[in-house]
Parts: sequence; structure tokens; C-alpha cells
Amino acid sequence: MEEKEISQAVIGRLPRYFRYLGELKDEGVERISSQDLSALMKVTASQIRQDFNNFGGFGQQGYGYNVEYLYNEIGKILGLDRQHNYIIIGAGNLGRALGNYLNFEKRGFILRGLFDQNPALVGSMVRGIEVMPMEEMERFIRENDIDIAVLTLPKTSAVPVAERLMGTQIRAIWNFAHVDLVMPERIQVENVHLSDSLMKLSYSISRYEKEQEKS
Amino acid sequence: MEEKEISQAVIGRLPRYFRYLGELKDEGVERISSQDLSALMKVTASQIRQDFNNFGGFGQQGYGYNVEYLYNEIGKILGLDRQHNYIIIGAGNLGRALGNYLNFEKRGFILRGLFDQNPALVGSMVRGIEVMPMEEMERFIRENDIDIAVLTLPKTSAVPVAERLMGTQIRAIWNFAHVDLVMPERIQVENVHLSDSLMKLSYSISRYEKEQEKS
Repeated sequence: MEEKEISQAVIGRLPRYFRYLGELKDEGVERISSQDLSALMKVTASQIRQDFNNFGGFGQQGYGYNVEYLYNEIGKILGLDRQHNYIIIGAGNLGRALGNYLNFEKRGFILRGLFDQNPALVGSMVRGIEVMPMEEMERFIRENDIDIAVLTLPKTSAVPVAERLMGTQIRAIWNFAHVDLVMPERIQVENVHLSDSLMKLSYSISRYEKEQEKS
Repeated sequence: MEEKEISQAVIGRLPRYFRYLGELKDEGVERISSQDLSALMKVTASQIRQDFNNFGGFGQQGYGYNVEYLYNEIGKILGLDRQHNYIIIGAGNLGRALGNYLNFEKRGFILRGLFDQNPALVGSMVRGIEVMPMEEMERFIRENDIDIAVLTLPKTSAVPVAERLMGTQIRAIWNFAHVDLVMPERIQVENVHLSDSLMKLSYSISRYEKEQEKS
């Protein structure tokens, strides 16, 4: 498969394709037409074809797409054909909630440890894994080959912790703190702002109401 | 402001503009050039100008953008110039984590109640609000003018709960269950798949590594 630059918009859509294809695979579906996938995913068949063309256009006229092949190819592009070890920093409600997401494990993201500065939380367990004190973080990362750090911390703590992480081998930060972290390129960052999603919902409500007023 | 159809891509970017403009406003900044906003947000000045042109292009040559005005206009588009009452259904770790997000309140999203089917969780408190049993949900929605339901439930429970919600006055569902809910248009839905964000991070790690291998 050629290493063509794929647009951010397409990349943004790949995880959802991956999820749907995974479910079809689990159901034993071997092939699917762009029309059927379109009806299932509520995405136009032409969008699907254009997106999949980025990967050499796997479909065959009259045959549709081979589900397992597509699932594997998209999985490779997303870097899901390998395991990632991650830690959670900040063992409050959100950290614990993420620690309990079993479907991350299904995707090859394995939780190895949690950390917190609060002595009351140190020693507590999340899914059989003990919460450790912050002082042990760097050593743990080194000894357990951790590549992703999930930050579920207040924003004032996130910045100094991110600075400490810069001195480690981690390759990526999944950041839920209310601040956009900017790191050197060797540490990829995904800043998650849950309120952005809520604001999009608010926009949808507003727009629907305006449409109703006009009719 | 004219009611022009704004693309989904631009809508997707509005919450982040809103956040940054809010912070500038809190810091007392009255105006900002597209260059400075660009440097701050790591978005091109031309993207900013194109996006803001959707709202009548508020900037003035040499003056830049009026922060408060832009903040208010984007807030109106996002439907944030009014209050929304919400409930959380599913009072496990994720539900409790969301219940503790004070910045939703800041945006006018007010938590009014939580619900769970587990008798062990009923009666527990989240930020001073009591978790109620599922039987009370419809009556509570009616009596408290609830317009948004946040679903933080396993996927098998999400579908029957969504069906119950269809019979209520709610206008929107913010869904964290691992299933894409499809509802009649009068109930807007935002399906959140946190694993999608993690998969994008995995893609970024993978792509960075491939770039490093080439050099």
C-alpha cells in the first residue's frame, strides 16, 4: 500500500469505519457493498468510496469490499496492529472511568499503571491495578516500556506533569486536562475537550429549533 | 447576522474558538489580530479569516477582531446564550466524572439530576445532587424542564433508555455508550466514542515513526 499523505478529515473518519468493520467481522460478514455500508453508517456511498480510495480502493465492482481485509488495512494505518502500553495520571473519577474501559484493551491499548499525588488515592485499585505515587512515574515508564500517558488532571497540574514526561520515552499524551498541551513532535498529543462535543450538541439543538420556527 | 448554512467542518471548529476567545476575554484582551490568534491557536490566519467570514467577517482591517463581540456571536451560534438543564443516566465512574465537570456549568449546562438502576448507587451524591432510581426519570424530566440527557451506560442499557427518552420532552442526547444511537430529528444526538480519539493518537504515533524511519 502506497504511503500517500491522507487528509486529516479522512483520518478523522477512520476510527468509525474501523469500529463498524470490526462489528461486521465479529458477526461473520465477509463482504459488504458501499451501499449497504452507507445505509449502516449513515455516510454517503460516494464518501466511503472516496475515503477508501486513499488506501488503494479495495472494492471490486460487483463484489463490494472484503470486510476483514479492509478492517486489517485500516487497523494498520491507525497503528492498531501492535500493542501500546499506557498509564493514567490522575486517578479521580475520569481517570478511573477510562481505566475501566475494556474496549481500549480490545484495540491493543493495555493499561499498566495509574498515578496520583493524593495519598488518599495511592494504594487504591482500578481493575486490579494499584494507584502509585507520582514519584514512581519516570521509573515505571522506563521499566514497563510505556508509550502513552493519559492525563486526567486539573490543568494546573497537567503542565508540570507534561514537562516531566518530556524527559521520558513516552511517544504520546492523551490529554483530558482543560488546557491545550503543545509538545515537541516526538511526543504526539491528542487534546480532548469534552465540552466541545457538548457545544456541538447545543448548536444542533439551536439549529433544529430555528428550522422549526421557519416552518 | 444572516442565517447562512455553515459547513460541519467549520461548526466542528467553533467550540475551540469559543474557548480561546473566552480566555482572552477573561484576561481583559479587547481585540486580537488574526496573526496573533493564529499563533495562539496554532491555526492558520487564513483559516481563521475564512471561518469567521461565515458570520459576516467581523474583523476590520488594521483593527483585528473584537474579542467580546466574536465570543458572543459564536456563543449564540452554538446556542450557548441560554441555559440547558441536563441529567446524567448511569452514575458509574464516567457519569460521576462528567457530573463533576464544573466548566459545563460555566457554559450554561446545569446538572439537575442523576439516575441509575443499581440500588447500591441510588441515594449516593454527586456534587450535592442525589442519584435517583430509573423509575423517576420521566417524571423528573417533565417537572424540571430537562432538555439534555447524558447517557453513560453500557450499550445494552442505552438502547432501551433511549427509547424511553423518545417519549419525553428532551431535545438532545449526549451519548457515551458504545453504540451509535439514531433518533428522530427532534432529539439531536451526539455520539461520543472516546476510543476514536485514542485511535487518532495511535495513527499520529505510527505516522511519526514512519517519517523518522525515512530520515
